[in-house]
Amino acid sequence: MAIKVLHIGLGPIGAGVVRQVATRKGFKIVGAVDIDPAKVGKDLGEICGVGRKLRIKVTSDIAKAIKATKPDVAVLCTNSSLKAVVGQFEAVLKLRVPIVSTTEELAYPVKSNAAAARKIDRLAKKAKVAVLGTGVNPGFVMDALPIALTGVCESVTGIEIDRVQDARVRRLPFQQKIGAGLTRAQFMARVKAGTVRHVGLAESITMIADAFGWKLDKVTDIIKPKMTTEAVTSEFMTVEPGLVCGLIQDGIGYQKGKAIITLHMEAYLGAPESFDAVRIKGNPALTMKIAGGVHGDVATASITVNSIPKVMSAAPGLRTMRDMVLPSYFGGK
Amino acid sequence: MAIKVLHIGLGPIGAGVVRQVATRKGFKIVGAVDIDPAKVGKDLGEICGVGRKLRIKVTSDIAKAIKATKPDVAVLCTNSSLKAVVGQFEAVLKLRVPIVSTTEELAYPVKSNAAAARKIDRLAKKAKVAVLGTGVNPGFVMDALPIALTGVCESVTGIEIDRVQDARVRRLPFQQKIGAGLTRAQFMARVKAGTVRHVGLAESITMIADAFGWKLDKVTDIIKPKMTTEAVTSEFMTVEPGLVCGLIQDGIGYQKGKAIITLHMEAYLGAPESFDAVRIKGNPALTMKIAGGVHGDVATASITVNSIPKVMSAAPGLRTMRDMVLPSYFGGK
Repeated sequence: MAIKVLHIGLGPIGAGVVRQVATRKGFKIVGAVDIDPAKVGKDLGEICGVGRKLRIKVTSDIAKAIKATKPDVAVLCTNSSLKAVVGQFEAVLKLRVPIVSTTEELAYPVKSNAAAARKIDRLAKKAKVAVLGTGVNPGFVMDALPIALTGVCESVTGIEIDRVQDARVRRLPFQQKIGAGLTRAQFMARVKAGTVRHVGLAESITMIADAFGWKLDKVTDIIKPKMTTEAVTSEFMTVEPGLVCGLIQDGIGYQKGKAIITLHMEAYLGAPESFDAVRIKGNPALTMKIAGGVHGDVATASITVNSIPKVMSAAPGLRTMRDMVLPSYFGGK
Repeated sequence: MAIKVLHIGLGPIGAGVVRQVATRKGFKIVGAVDIDPAKVGKDLGEICGVGRKLRIKVTSDIAKAIKATKPDVAVLCTNSSLKAVVGQFEAVLKLRVPIVSTTEELAYPVKSNAAAARKIDRLAKKAKVAVLGTGVNPGFVMDALPIALTGVCESVTGIEIDRVQDARVRRLPFQQKIGAGLTRAQFMARVKAGTVRHVGLAESITMIADAFGWKLDKVTDIIKPKMTTEAVTSEFMTVEPGLVCGLIQDGIGYQKGKAIITLHMEAYLGAPESFDAVRIKGNPALTMKIAGGVHGDVATASITVNSIPKVMSAAPGLRTMRDMVLPSYFGGK
């Protein structure tokens, strides 16, 4: 029996999830919701670039969509901010539908989101369904995968994770999110406003610390611009010398004044090599590298779709990648 | 509260587990069992090279040891063969104690072990406790970790895993198990007798196939000697030119005549580079490498110890690394 999926949120990530669910074995799309008036009433396949009509009309009301389509699971890809989406989770959970979400702050709720996370956990338990926050980052390359690697360690005294991405091959919203094309002053203003940033380093650091049983004194998250000295061009823009071509972001978890969890991200147009790397200090010390890195857009949609069957059999409540069963590609059945 | 651990089997792996449990936070050793008369009655710390007495006498009867020590969990490291250890599992499960075991064939029971696995699953469910088969290989580097990596894949069409180890730094029983120092004829005779081999490739292949929802037509497991052309020396032996210095073992899972899961192992004295590598064919294609590889002995003991708290909260029955929560280093609490 195919799993009946309702899609909530049809931005770039939500649309990527729709394209996979529409074509991969084991799933059946039953409905789609978005608040954008330009999308409501249109065919889901056309909105999401599936390349064919899906005969599913986009609607704007979550509760009505669930009642009309009786989904087995909802995929929610609307916003990075947990507080912004609590109401959406509530609407779904009141109708007892499990949820997989790419909401970055849900991947591992930090203190400032604890109240919202508790509310979602309570609603999910009441509904006897599971809710999972997942994604590639946060959710995998800078937390779940490095955590899994330490499963073979007798001791861990520190962990360093690098994620370097050449943003030239990424979508336009991503290039904008990392500040490409801005002046240094514009970049810093947007960092201050919170519109230029990667969301998730504090979440990943907290997930790692909790997995190891570590107490942290302090978590920092610092964003700097990467300036280009020569013109660099993507499909969408050219950045002239002296302007920002992307960001460098460092998240650090400290214990007794010592950096013991170090997450280093570089995402800019023209990075010479994309890769994901993990260095575990401990016994055994371990060094892992994914050459070319894990491409964010396809991979985020993939891990969301692969998580669907897992969340349906997970224990009720708010789950994270740390307490879910082992991630895996799902080939359908 | 420290977790009370009973150790069953004090060979090289069991002793490695004892050394970790004796020194890592969060555990308390309450008893130890081995059938070797040379070990029974001795102090566990002396037998296992802990470097100090543990004031635990090794005994020979599992049921008596459990009744006397009331462990929270048993660690069972006695034999690679599942059929050989069913009686030991039964003795533990009758007294309702969860088990973590390094029995290779338990890591993911294949068809020929299905009856024994069903029996252990039934006993565990009756006892309302979980049993986990784990280890580095099988259990991690050639199955669970590569499976986890595919969590970010939209499609997987094939997977190739390499594990290359310079056996010079491994313990003597390992060097013997891979046939180091034998002639080609002796090696082939021992392969036939089943005493020279790595146990676990079929288990790993089956775990991967099941994780992806793949049906395989055929699984092969072929062992060849690695001959040395120059003398090679370890701490324990020198292998002269023309003799076997280790093994090359290939496990392959076929679908419609095509090799879609390929596990390649090289373990011999003098391998120029140790590493673990995974190549996933699919979208995205992924290439991961652990430079230096995951050292088998320390890592097998580590993953066993790290699994103890996880198995205590797992659902009753026979579990595998595929349906357990994400592996992780356990720092105690």
